Formats: sequence, structure tokens, C-alpha cells
Amino acid sequence: MPHKPERFTVEYLLTIRDNRPAEEHARDIAIEQTVEVPPDVIPQEHFEAEIPGRVESVQPVAGRSDQFRLAISYRCDITAWSVPQLLNVLYGNISLKDNIRIESLHLPDSLLRAFGGPRYGIEGLRSLTGVYGRPLACTAIKPMGLPTAELARIAGAFAAGGADLVKDDHGITDQAFHPFEERVARCQEAIEEANARSGRRTLYFPMISGSVVQIEKQARFAVRQGVRGVLLGPMLVGPDTMRYLSAEYNLAVMAHPALTGTAFHDREHGMSPAVLLGTLFRLIGADVSIFPNAGGRFHFTPGECAAIAGALREPLGELAATLPCPAGGMSLARVPELAASFGPDSVFLIGGDVLRRPDIEAGTRDFMDAIREGFGEELAAPAEPFVSACEWGGAERRQTLHDLLRFDDFTWQGRQREAYKASGTLPFSGVSRLELVGRHGEQTAFDVRYFEIEPGGYSSLEKHVHEHVIIGVRGRGVLSKNDREIPIGVHDIAYVGPLDAHQLRNTREEPFGFFCIVDRERDRPRPA
Amino acid sequence: MPHKPERFTVEYLLTIRDNRPAEEHARDIAIEQTVEVPPDVIPQEHFEAEIPGRVESVQPVAGRSDQFRLAISYRCDITAWSVPQLLNVLYGNISLKDNIRIESLHLPDSLLRAFGGPRYGIEGLRSLTGVYGRPLACTAIKPMGLPTAELARIAGAFAAGGADLVKDDHGITDQAFHPFEERVARCQEAIEEANARSGRRTLYFPMISGSVVQIEKQARFAVRQGVRGVLLGPMLVGPDTMRYLSAEYNLAVMAHPALTGTAFHDREHGMSPAVLLGTLFRLIGADVSIFPNAGGRFHFTPGECAAIAGALREPLGELAATLPCPAGGMSLARVPELAASFGPDSVFLIGGDVLRRPDIEAGTRDFMDAIREGFGEELAAPAEPFVSACEWGGAERRQTLHDLLRFDDFTWQGRQREAYKASGTLPFSGVSRLELVGRHGEQTAFDVRYFEIEPGGYSSLEKHVHEHVIIGVRGRGVLSKNDREIPIGVHDIAYVGPLDAHQLRNTREEPFGFFCIVDRERDRPRPA
Repeated sequence: MPHKPERFTVEYLLTIRDNRPAEEHARDIAIEQTVEVPPDVIPQEHFEAEIPGRVESVQPVAGRSDQFRLAISYRCDITAWSVPQLLNVLYGNISLKDNIRIESLHLPDSLLRAFGGPRYGIEGLRSLTGVYGRPLACTAIKPMGLPTAELARIAGAFAAGGADLVKDDHGITDQAFHPFEERVARCQEAIEEANARSGRRTLYFPMISGSVVQIEKQARFAVRQGVRGVLLGPMLVGPDTMRYLSAEYNLAVMAHPALTGTAFHDREHGMSPAVLLGTLFRLIGADVSIFPNAGGRFHFTPGECAAIAGALREPLGELAATLPCPAGGMSLARVPELAASFGPDSVFLIGGDVLRRPDIEAGTRDFMDAIREGFGEELAAPAEPFVSACEWGGAERRQTLHDLLRFDDFTWQGRQREAYKASGTLPFSGVSRLELVGRHGEQTAFDVRYFEIEPGGYSSLEKHVHEHVIIGVRGRGVLSKNDREIPIGVHDIAYVGPLDAHQLRNTREEPFGFFCIVDRERDRPRPA
Repeated sequence: MPHKPERFTVEYLLTIRDNRPAEEHARDIAIEQTVEVPPDVIPQEHFEAEIPGRVESVQPVAGRSDQFRLAISYRCDITAWSVPQLLNVLYGNISLKDNIRIESLHLPDSLLRAFGGPRYGIEGLRSLTGVYGRPLACTAIKPMGLPTAELARIAGAFAAGGADLVKDDHGITDQAFHPFEERVARCQEAIEEANARSGRRTLYFPMISGSVVQIEKQARFAVRQGVRGVLLGPMLVGPDTMRYLSAEYNLAVMAHPALTGTAFHDREHGMSPAVLLGTLFRLIGADVSIFPNAGGRFHFTPGECAAIAGALREPLGELAATLPCPAGGMSLARVPELAASFGPDSVFLIGGDVLRRPDIEAGTRDFMDAIREGFGEELAAPAEPFVSACEWGGAERRQTLHDLLRFDDFTWQGRQREAYKASGTLPFSGVSRLELVGRHGEQTAFDVRYFEIEPGGYSSLEKHVHEHVIIGVRGRGVLSKNDREIPIGVHDIAYVGPLDAHQLRNTREEPFGFFCIVDRERDRPRPA
């Protein structure tokens, strides 16, 4: 018997505005979202393979003759395991109809695993900040248009006041009056200075927004500055961008609901907020999901907000839980109400009401005090960043800048050989290293190193965002890059691209030596 | 007098559901979409710099005491000239309110130029296909789930029948049962075979959808297969992805409205279809914009469809015009009505009604005949293929990114030797150059070049702020650096610091070759 492909199920609220029976509407949806041809064009084998959606149930809504709850299931593999096609199957074409609302999703493990969910989640963010037992406090750097130095001063005051998370206002992107790189560098610096004084760890979440190319550059820049998390609007930059930055850059992600509101406006159309800002944003990687809380500037009900928080935190296969972040015009006076509504595993985001105080640091302290009043705070040392693969292996032993490093039997006069990754936990064997250029007073944007691998030796199997240029100097070796084996001889030049899994090995009887050129500003390697 | 930054204006329909005056709502929008803080937190200089939105007018709607038309202007530069932030300023947070609809946009030239609009537009697609005087005919490969060979057969039959454009169904992405690369290769091949027989040029638009990484791979693959255009859902893959593929890959783009429907559902909320599927999709690069025509499976009115077509084709600065593509359950019987509604400068998309015919090629011919009936077709030779930006962009003769540049007698496979400073004014002699790494798609902060100097030859005597790292590869040479003469042999590493006067010379009888590594971002040399 052939293996039956796994299916996921979508529950819809259908409101009938014509005289056609609910079953017919249900069949239309099942076809529209999959094969999208008139029924007479669908081959019989398609029904056998269950490629069209399958109507599982049609239930009338009590007291409403025009409303029905539909359950329709779809083969998981028609999503191509990708975020855009998942959204397309869920609501692509039927978004253009006016009587269908998605109320809930039932996703099997295969689908949950494919998308992966939060990289950090509640536990991961607690571990990074060292804060337990109470909601995390988040403040927002704004308003747009302030000089960079002033934005950095505000960031530092938030951190000095004890905020756990500091995010950019989501409209502060890469405007000429506060360009991304300058702004992020200064804000991160201000927060790190405050952290150094306090011994705690406030995390900065800069807004990532811009063209496809800019987003990649911004993420790289942020990572190099030591930033651990970012804010983004999945519907602004594309929903898969959130999953991508979380998965590939190892960043915590805070999802902003900008542009999602059209999905919620009519309670007979779109998706429930719990589906989009809850289940879906969690599925595609949000560690924190911001939503407009009831009673602020927007129109969600308390019940809708509770449902979002529920979808973010309920058991969902092996997915980590996401921190709900009620926001949108909250004030310090409302902290007790937030505490009662959302409990300790949440983020309280207050922007304007802290900023309007004459002393922002004191205002932040008031915010923290208000949170602590309702909870038993427990502090731990913030988790250390991933340092086991540190490629600088301890002391940097700065050597002298020379006009010429004279080559002499695979050493260079004026440069000392060092142990490779003295304290690494990633396995490697028989590797030594010379820092030739870049660490001795030069101002180059790159470092030139010489590595030598003994017969039988190998470097760590790792990946990172920065690239390698490898030039063979001595003997022969092999570069494993993703699934390829690339032999390298003298003067061959190999390229390792961003996030390529790679390892160098010496399978010969003589030493294998090579230059490795890398960007000066680079991220730390991690296990591939 | 300081220069006033240029502004764009958004016209909103406001429906008041509380008792607050329209002017107050207008001020709220102007602040919400920009500085997003309570008015008392906005610095006075912000108002002087006009960083918050500015309410330009508030007009009551005739016969409706609860409705007003608002015009609010914004500084163009707060968009950071990027698609995500433009969308955020337009409708990010206010999407979460329930009483505001965007009815039209007034965009000045600076903003139009920054986003660029269609790369091909109506004229470009006519030139590529060689079809003038009538609407272009588009068919759709489907249903999802057919074997790849069958999808290719359908594609070939459409082309043999004379369709101008053949697109994938938008749900056909990278499913395991018809993986992207195999499917696109086979469909493009089938269409090219039909083109070779007909002497015409049917264009294939495969659906681009998937993760951030997959989209880039798909676009590259498609371009390499000779594909000239792609279909995508801007709201599925992120709206800037459309601009990016158009601008960077030189591809024609057909925009699909999947997931946009929530914007249109309520005529007191969201955006008018003419704003999103018309003005905005045109602004960010759509050459063809697909929309659900009135009288099909969806609920747009004839007036809304006419407004979309108007927004796509009306004069708009220097932007090319976009082809409107009414779709969504059209049939051959409706071609005369489509012709009357949309005229010759449009694309008619008919899928199921061609596919359901026993002979798809004959069905396509019937579709073509139906179109020709109402118009005077004029055919020209299709324009010659363009050179893809993917492989050859710009004056820089970009070569391909390779895993390995194999060394072979002081050349490297995959890299061409170039003349050194062909048009320089500084004297030099007998120097050739290879750009090895950094100019071929790598994102390194440095470039690796190989220079070779013939016996008796020399480089320019020059200086610059950027540094050189020089590694001897072949023969021996001399570096003059300020007042020193430094001999360089194989694997010696020389350093030229900021503003060091320097020149390389070959005083020997054999060629002198060396790697020279420099920062990617660097200043121009000047005479020493």
C-alpha cells in the first residue's frame, strides 16, 4: 500500500452571501487553494493522490443560518515546505473572496519541524538575559528623526534603567538622517557600556528593513556589532525573511505586526489574530510577537489578545514557545493589568510613556519597579555567547607591523606560529596558524592568515556568515564545502561563501599549507 | 534658506466610528505613520523639519456625515527609499485600525525614480515578443501535481498554439513531485522548441517562490535556462523581491495578487485595488499586474478593474506603463468583453477554459483567434535577447563566482587576464592583471588580484589611502616604497601602508607575478 502523505487541516469560518450550499463553497476552497482548475479538468489520479484539498467537515454555526465552520485538509508537501507557498495554500487566492476567515490550524510534526519555530523562544531569551520569574521589559528608541547621538543616548538610558530588551521604533530604518550602520553601532555601544556598568545584559533589537540586498547587509553588520536580536515586520520584508534571519544568522527575532491589520479587520474575513500573529509567526521563527493590546490605540479585544498569547505559548510539537508582547500605547499605569492578563512569560513593551518622562533612565526604573511589584524576579548570569569555536584562541599577541615578511621554509620572519583554536570544542586536529597581516597595526578591511595542517589533520567543520578565500601554498589538501569535495593544490584559489558548511583536511603524507583571507569584521564560526 | 525635502501625498477615506472630529483622526494618522509617540514627546524641531506627516486637507464626503477625505503628506526621505519602509509609512500601523482606506497616491519624481517602475513595461514586452496592435495572450500551466513531463507538454502546446506568454500556475513552486529546476528546464525547453518551429517568441514566466535562499537560486537558474520573465506573488515572497528580481536579474515580472485580498475586502478599510495592484505594483517593478476581473470567481467591480488598468497605464513621471492582466476564471467566450473593457495594451489570461479542451494547442489557437478578431495584429521580429545582469552586469565584465579557481601555469581557470589601467594617465609598462576574487558575486570586504610584470616592466608610481598586501607568486621583483627598495620573492609578503609612495618593478629576465589584496571600498590612486 503506498505511503499516504501527511496532511494539515485548516478551520475556516464561512459566511454565505449567495444561495449556494456550504458544501459547494467548501469544495471551491479546496480546489482554489490547490489545483485551481475547473473540476472537469482535474485528472482522476489527482483525487487518488489527494492533491486537491479535502473537505473534512462542514458544521453549521449555532444561531446563524448563514455561517458554517469548515475543516479542509491539505497534503503537507504541497507547501513545498516553504513559507510563501504555505501562506499561498492557506489564504493566497481566497483572500480575494469576501466570506472566508481562517480560525485555526492543525499542523502535524513534519510541517512543524520543516519550519522550525523560534530559535530561542521563551527559555532562550531568559537564558540570554538571565531574567526569570517575571515578564521582560522592552522599551523603544524613538522618535524617528532624532540625531543618531540622541537615539544612542536614549538607548543607553533604557539599558542603564534596567530594561531587558530595547528595540528600535519600527519606522527607524536606514533614513539619511540616522543611517542604519552608524545608528546601530552607536546604540549597541551605548547599551554595552551600560551593561558593563550594571553587570546585566540588556539586549538591543535594531529594526531590519530595506531592500533585499540591504537586509542581508544590515543583518551582517548587526551580527558583527555583537547584536543578538532584531526587530522586523514579516509582512514588510517578506515573511520568510524572519525565518531566514533566525535560522541563518542565529538572531533572536521580534515580529512587528505592521501591515497585518487588513487580515483582522473584518471578523468574517482574513485570519484570526491568533492564527497570524500567534501560530504562524511562531511557526516561522518569532521569539517575540508584538501585537496591539486591547485598550490601546487599536481595536483588538481582550479575548483576541488572550488567544494570541495562547497560540504563542501552547504546546506545539517540539516548537519552542514564543513570548507574547502586548503593545500599542501601553502605559506604566497599566502594568498591573498587563501582568494579570499575560503573566510572567511575556514581554511588556512601553515606549512613549517612558520617553515622555524628563529622566528616561528613572522612567525605565519606574517601569521595572512596576513589573517587579507583581512577580518574584530571579536573576541569573546571562548565558555566555557561543565562544567554544573562537578562532582567536585566547591572547592576540600583537606582533609588529613590517614592510616585508620574508618567506623562509613555510614560516615568515616576524610572525609567530600559534595554536589553532586553543580552547575550541569543535573538533579539529593538527592545525597551526600564523596571523600574517591585519592584526599587527595594519588598517586593512581583511586579515591574511597562513594555516598548516599536518598529514591526517583537519580543521573544524563549521559555518559562518563571513567568507573565506583560500590559496594553496604547500602540498595538497581537500576542502569539503557543503556536499562537495574540492582538491586544493599550490596557487589554487578556493572560495567559501556565506554559511557554506566547510572543513579542510590533509589526506596526504606532507603538510598542507594555505593562505586564508577573511574580512576583518566577521562573525564567529558555529558548528555546521 | 534651507532646502525643503520633497513630499508625497496620500489620500485616505476616513470613516468615523467614534465621536472625535475628523481633524483629530487625521493628526493621529500623521503621527502614527511617522514618529509614533504622543504629541508631547515630539521635539519642536521635528515640526520645523516636517518629519511628522502633515495634514493637507480634510474634506467631508457628500451625503455621508461620518466620512471624510484626508490628504496627508510625508517627507519622501522617511521611506529610506526602500519598499518595506514605503509600505510601512503608507499603511503599516494604521492597517490595525479599522476605519482608514488609502484611495490614491501622489508621488513626486524623486520617489518614482528611486523605485524605478517596470524594467520592460508595455513597450518592452511588445519588443520582446514582437507583438503589436492587440492584447497579449497568456495561458497557465496547471494543475499542480501533474508529472513534470506533462507540464512541459502543456507548455509546449500553449506555445505551439501561439500564446504570447505562458506562466506557471502560482501554486506550482518547488514541490517534490515537480521540483523547480527540472520543471523550469523542461517547460522552457518545450517552449523554445515550439518557438524554433514557429519563428515567433512565446515567453515563459515560471513561478518564483520559496525561502529567501531558494528565490535567489531559482532566479539564477531560470536566467541560465534562457527564461526572460518570472511570475511572483509580492505579498508571498516580500514586495521588494519583485523590484530586486526586476532590477538585478533583468527579468520581466508578472505580479500575482495572492494574499492581497485582505486589503480590498472592505471598501472602508485597506487600500483601493488601484493603489496596491495598480500604482504600487507598477512603482516596484511589475511589467504585468494580474487581477481578478469582474464577473469571474472574485468580487471586484468593473469600475475597480478599470481603475486598476488606469493606474497601471496612466502617465506617471518617467515610469514605463504596466500591462493590466484581468484574470480569475475568464473564458474564451468573454474575450470580446475583455477587449472592450481593456483595449489592446493589456494581457488576457485564460487558464482552465483552454486546458479543458481535448486539444490544448487547438484551444490556444481558438484563444488567439478570438483576440485577433477585435484587433489589427502587427508582428515584428522579437527583439534580440538581452544580456543577463546575473552573469555579465555592468561595464565591469563580471565573471562567474566559482568554488575553485584552478591554477594552471600562472593563469586561473575561470578568470580572464585584463589590461592594467588601459586608460590610465600615470605611466606604466608591461603589466597585466587578473581579478581573482571580489568582483564576481563574492561579498568579501576585499579583492584579490594577480598582477604580472614583464621583464623591464613597471607599475605606476602612485599613492593612496588604502593599503596593499603583496604576496610573491612568480619570479622576483622589487617594491619601491617611499625611499626603500624591497626585493620580493615567491611567498614573501610585502605591505604598502596608507599614502606610501610605491611602485613595483621587474628587473629580471622572467615574469614577476604577485597577488595584491586590497580593500573592496578604496580610494583612487594618485601620482606619488
